[in-house]
Amino acid sequence: MARIGILGAGQLGQMLALAGIPLGMRFRFLDSAAGSPAGQVAEHIVADYHDGAGLKQFLEELDLVTYEFENIPLDVVEEISKIIPVYPPAMALEKSQDRFLEKSFFRTLGIPTPEFARATDPGFEFPCVLKTCRMGYDGKGQFLVTNENERSQVLKQLGDRDAIQEQYIQFERELSLLAVRARRGETRFYPLIENTHRDGILRKSIAPAQDVNPGLQKSAEEYAISILNTLDYIGVLAIEFFQVDGKLLASEMAPRVHNSGHWTIEGAVTSQFENHLRAVSGAPLGDTSPLGVCGMLNLVGGSPPVEEILKTEGAHLHLYGKKAHPRRKIGHVTFVEKDLAELTVKLGELEKTLIDDR
Amino acid sequence: MARIGILGAGQLGQMLALAGIPLGMRFRFLDSAAGSPAGQVAEHIVADYHDGAGLKQFLEELDLVTYEFENIPLDVVEEISKIIPVYPPAMALEKSQDRFLEKSFFRTLGIPTPEFARATDPGFEFPCVLKTCRMGYDGKGQFLVTNENERSQVLKQLGDRDAIQEQYIQFERELSLLAVRARRGETRFYPLIENTHRDGILRKSIAPAQDVNPGLQKSAEEYAISILNTLDYIGVLAIEFFQVDGKLLASEMAPRVHNSGHWTIEGAVTSQFENHLRAVSGAPLGDTSPLGVCGMLNLVGGSPPVEEILKTEGAHLHLYGKKAHPRRKIGHVTFVEKDLAELTVKLGELEKTLIDDR
Repeated sequence: MARIGILGAGQLGQMLALAGIPLGMRFRFLDSAAGSPAGQVAEHIVADYHDGAGLKQFLEELDLVTYEFENIPLDVVEEISKIIPVYPPAMALEKSQDRFLEKSFFRTLGIPTPEFARATDPGFEFPCVLKTCRMGYDGKGQFLVTNENERSQVLKQLGDRDAIQEQYIQFERELSLLAVRARRGETRFYPLIENTHRDGILRKSIAPAQDVNPGLQKSAEEYAISILNTLDYIGVLAIEFFQVDGKLLASEMAPRVHNSGHWTIEGAVTSQFENHLRAVSGAPLGDTSPLGVCGMLNLVGGSPPVEEILKTEGAHLHLYGKKAHPRRKIGHVTFVEKDLAELTVKLGELEKTLIDDR
Repeated sequence: MARIGILGAGQLGQMLALAGIPLGMRFRFLDSAAGSPAGQVAEHIVADYHDGAGLKQFLEELDLVTYEFENIPLDVVEEISKIIPVYPPAMALEKSQDRFLEKSFFRTLGIPTPEFARATDPGFEFPCVLKTCRMGYDGKGQFLVTNENERSQVLKQLGDRDAIQEQYIQFERELSLLAVRARRGETRFYPLIENTHRDGILRKSIAPAQDVNPGLQKSAEEYAISILNTLDYIGVLAIEFFQVDGKLLASEMAPRVHNSGHWTIEGAVTSQFENHLRAVSGAPLGDTSPLGVCGMLNLVGGSPPVEEILKTEGAHLHLYGKKAHPRRKIGHVTFVEKDLAELTVKLGELEKTLIDDR
């Protein structure tokens, strides 16, 4: 029975535990926030990542450590790696924690990205997006600027934080790829997912993304393979792309299970959560085939009553046990339908009832 | 957020909790056995059902109580019912705790059963099966007798325990029906399931059962409706049948989620566990449609290594966190396939590796 430690105790951790318990795995979480979602289903050490005593207690009798959040301090992961295995490897965390490193890494591997430069580099074309290099998520720390004056103001606001300027992309759509690589190097891919964000927060995912030609899926997988193998990666990796002129530009990656893959719980033979756990524990990977046309809606900022959601036939509800709060993801709902038409009806019904921070 | 108390903390309780946590429900279990499966995923009060202090602690701030085991003392359930709702109703528990009452109840409703009589009644035809009226499960307390001498010996062995004698049925096969009834009286049915027992223990379930004509499914559902409505039943009810000459004879019922319905976790739109929780919590019921041809194998007495199981594509593993022990169910594996031929191959692969108490 594998005893797995997870850094971070949010909903991703909770869903990892719910997927792993039936495989005979047991979990312990480390996170400074008491009452976190994962702590409601497994042991939770409430301590700062840099708290030596907490870390020691966390590591007791674990077989391996993984993480559900990429803003874990790198030094903590490196320290743990000296004692027991940590998957995905620290190198993946390092690259994904810094937007400049991340995009440079993509470019090194020949993966197309939007144009980018250090925010302090002059002569970058407008409009562009200024982003803090670190700790940005759900649209935090991102600013669209259209002229030199706006740029200076944002730079002043960011103070001495490292920032990146990126070409403003008018994309056709946003897609993501979930890849998983096992300890023995075996890799599998879920089909490309189409994602809709609003105010920087993921609202909806459709999988498989519609109108994806085989070339597009192949490109995405080739980019993923190149990242996975270069990093000797183990676990689930998410890569977010912009689709522009029918081609992919890599936007960012997350070295963990990903919100755009929640549909895999009911919508794929093996969920991203189970496959991540299979990968890190050294088990064979599971089938990533989709079981229908899947749609996922995030419950952001609040949720309609449970009864209201469940009365829509086929609604798979996931509440994380978090207090409602503006812009906070407190749950999601997945549908697995025969075709896009049916899915659209179901999603439409639910969207009408969403209590959202519009 | 519904707070649900569950009497009994075995694997059925564990799977109820795993199904209910994503619905925002929280669980507390009462069971005298420390280290029980459900206690590994939720709060577990380790106390005897008749321990007043334990019961009080168990009931604190609960919204309702249900059970995962039908041999809960009836007086305890009746006492709890005075304080907060208990579903399914105590009457269902009473009927299913005593084989004589149960079969008499079936007959009252016009549901065919094998011939039966009190074990002490003379003149019953041989061969017949003597069974204790109470506390029998997994084949315990059952004896095939072929003559008066054997019958006397068994009766002596049973001492003053109530027993029933039943016609020995040479059935074509064993089938079960899972029905669910909501608080508002809405009912749904899963398709009939074909079950294979060995030494009185369920080994394999196939769902939907093959070669079921619509009449057979309809009969089963009519019998179920009659039981559900008579008892004003709320929750999942399992009924086990013998198929004889293409017709159904009711063998027994269980007022709870059932081993023959474990395939519904991956194999139906809504699992029996989720539907039981939807029913008892007053939510609308979920779709019971199967997602393919499903097969479930119990892991009895032990399990092959996890890696061995997971390398068969499509294997959905469920380990309950129980110590291996002869005749003990410690987990199960489900496959959901396109057709019976594929399913048969998958089940065959796994069956070869089973560490069983043959």
